[in-house]
Amino acid sequence: MNDVTQQLARFIVSSRWNDIPASVRHEGERAIINWLGCALGGCRDVVVGRLLDALGRYAGEPQATLLGRGGRVDVLTAACINAVSSNILDFDDTHLRSVIHPSVPVAAALVALAEHRKLGGADFLHAFVLGVDAECRIANAVSPAHYESGWHITATCGVFGAAVAAGKALRLDARQMVWAIGIAATQASGMLEMLGSMSKSYNMGHAARNGLVAALLAENNITSSERALEAPRGFLNLLATASDATEITRELGSRWELTENTYKPYPCGIVIHPVIDACLDLRTARRLDPAQITAVSITVNPLALQLCGNQSPRTGLEGKLSLYHSAAVALVDGEAGVNQYTDERVTDPRIVTFREKITLASDALIGKAQARVCITHNGGTHHEIFVEHARGSRERPLSDAEIESKFRSLARAELSPHAIDRLIDSCWLLAQLPDVGDIARASVASPIAASGR
Amino acid sequence: MNDVTQQLARFIVSSRWNDIPASVRHEGERAIINWLGCALGGCRDVVVGRLLDALGRYAGEPQATLLGRGGRVDVLTAACINAVSSNILDFDDTHLRSVIHPSVPVAAALVALAEHRKLGGADFLHAFVLGVDAECRIANAVSPAHYESGWHITATCGVFGAAVAAGKALRLDARQMVWAIGIAATQASGMLEMLGSMSKSYNMGHAARNGLVAALLAENNITSSERALEAPRGFLNLLATASDATEITRELGSRWELTENTYKPYPCGIVIHPVIDACLDLRTARRLDPAQITAVSITVNPLALQLCGNQSPRTGLEGKLSLYHSAAVALVDGEAGVNQYTDERVTDPRIVTFREKITLASDALIGKAQARVCITHNGGTHHEIFVEHARGSRERPLSDAEIESKFRSLARAELSPHAIDRLIDSCWLLAQLPDVGDIARASVASPIAASGR
Repeated sequence: MNDVTQQLARFIVSSRWNDIPASVRHEGERAIINWLGCALGGCRDVVVGRLLDALGRYAGEPQATLLGRGGRVDVLTAACINAVSSNILDFDDTHLRSVIHPSVPVAAALVALAEHRKLGGADFLHAFVLGVDAECRIANAVSPAHYESGWHITATCGVFGAAVAAGKALRLDARQMVWAIGIAATQASGMLEMLGSMSKSYNMGHAARNGLVAALLAENNITSSERALEAPRGFLNLLATASDATEITRELGSRWELTENTYKPYPCGIVIHPVIDACLDLRTARRLDPAQITAVSITVNPLALQLCGNQSPRTGLEGKLSLYHSAAVALVDGEAGVNQYTDERVTDPRIVTFREKITLASDALIGKAQARVCITHNGGTHHEIFVEHARGSRERPLSDAEIESKFRSLARAELSPHAIDRLIDSCWLLAQLPDVGDIARASVASPIAASGR
Repeated sequence: MNDVTQQLARFIVSSRWNDIPASVRHEGERAIINWLGCALGGCRDVVVGRLLDALGRYAGEPQATLLGRGGRVDVLTAACINAVSSNILDFDDTHLRSVIHPSVPVAAALVALAEHRKLGGADFLHAFVLGVDAECRIANAVSPAHYESGWHITATCGVFGAAVAAGKALRLDARQMVWAIGIAATQASGMLEMLGSMSKSYNMGHAARNGLVAALLAENNITSSERALEAPRGFLNLLATASDATEITRELGSRWELTENTYKPYPCGIVIHPVIDACLDLRTARRLDPAQITAVSITVNPLALQLCGNQSPRTGLEGKLSLYHSAAVALVDGEAGVNQYTDERVTDPRIVTFREKITLASDALIGKAQARVCITHNGGTHHEIFVEHARGSRERPLSDAEIESKFRSLARAELSPHAIDRLIDSCWLLAQLPDVGDIARASVASPIAASGR
């Protein structure tokens, strides 16, 4: 694998839209709807506001839209801010094998670029598919050593996805694409040590921006190493104690990493999801009245208990990693959406009291996407359910309708139901759009629509 | 060392101008003059032009000067471009122990910031000294493992220097300074694999910009890990196979890394320098006529031969790593400045022919800052010289006058002799300046002066 950087670059440059199977194109549309919903849901977060306060005064001309919240800044700043918006809720997609969240850096870079260098829908979707493929393959090549040692893989590999996608959209030649990959490599950064702080999502913004910069510098013939991935002191060796470069090129063009993508139905730790499924299913099927529930007994995989065993979360962020809180809101509210993971909801006395009824156990025979929940009703009735595959897992992917529904719940604070319908329709017809910038602009409520006209 | 990040941050925040010894302040002035000269000499380089073409259209309001070449862009873009200008000639300073070039990322970030948030000379110099101290100490802590594995230390540690210096200038409190260090850590990047390509100097621009961003985000209360350096998966462990955190705090405030700084007299590989000294000294002392020289025999340390044994360089960049070319221009031109390392000079037939008269040998008994040169003159006379310590080494530092002279030769293409005199005077009086932005503005020829009025 002495020329893996060259091979990857040549593949990206020579790829044609017709080479992308219909199923992969459709998965791209699903990923974009999911990503855009996350950006709309996260765009008012305090972190986004602080980043804009800090960076806005240095931003350039109004070239690209700040998704959801509106306002326009230069393309690079928009890529950074929109990436943070779309990651801040921890509700974005997951490539399970590498634990990379593939859409954020790629889509944020591409959508911002699309407003400045008009980009048609097919070219956009093509570049997006290739960017996701490149970043996931590079992530596979350094997994699991890279993540285990402490690199925030969505940032460190996401920068390649953004560079490759932007480079494809800019129609770089093969030599320039090699440079774009190299400039991405030398900017690769992001530490898992930031998890739990605001810098965790900034890592995403940094990666999206830097990937876009890599493509723009390469377009202007800024050279780099031509073996940035595989060189003895290249990315694979420098940022991983063990790596396999053949992951990058194996079945290139016939197997698409985007088809491995998954979408979260709930904005919390993924090992909690089967428990929420169980609680919601029981609540609906048995028409349970939360006030009549006396005890809830939950059995999960040991890893789930280890990661998410926090019985007394104090903030929304801690709630996202609490099996207790998640089961409580699922049973009390009948929902586990963004509103269930606010500081207010986590400290609500009704929820806090309910959490005390819950007991947790682990069982190594139960899989990470499985859970058993037993609810005791006032009077002694027991209701039990076993979830074999969580919603959103590879075995039980979210349907198109479920992805639409997730989008609606995330977008409803920003857009009217009518505007949401039109935006969803545009995304399902992405490949036919003459100008993808229209999607970015349609993510912001127009003053006319907002005033009811 | 469970709180080294906190200790470093508290030291930076509580440091007072009066704590900085006069000798360290003076070394800061020397470093700034050397750095500014490099920026003026490099500002027209093709790489700087291409970066501006690529990034200029996304730049913000005209807040800060592009040193030497003029024009104004936002503070962050200026920090990036000015860092590249000041590194591109490979003529910047060197902290020998860590092989970091300390001034580039720190000074580029600070000077750009100074134009937007008015900064007095003492505050500027104070922040500069602290930034250099922090980056060199962090570099010491991860040396030599970090550089040996392939990290471009001036970028990966320079980002801390820029963050700390900008953070001090912005008067961050201790908690914010911890975050600035953390945000710097999660952006730390830069691969030695880029050496020999244009991305090598871009690494510097990226580090200067990112360090400044880290301070600005921290100022706006973007949080980060509070143990970014020493955490089990923090910077020291993640980016080095071996590290010593005590290097960061040992004799903090009583020993200053800036006093270990050195300045290159010639813009080429540092192991070549004693050979140039020998050639220039012999040429002057014996009034040698290059046309009468029949043979040149050079003996150097084996490492010098290994790194710089290229007998037939084809470009200016290759010439910088050629003992043959450097000895040839020193003897033929009586100079080894920027003009001696252009593509034109390296391929000049007169120089190419002269290089053929040179033979090279290595001797392990000769130190890395030493050289022996023997010149045979037409008629059979031999002239021999042994250089014990190269000019610019720790043992034989450049004098203030030599640093001024270097500045003049680097600045003369951009500024009149009168403007150069004034700029040098300003730098020697740095601590008294009410507004350091004046220095940035004075680095550009005024239209009035240029037209001869």
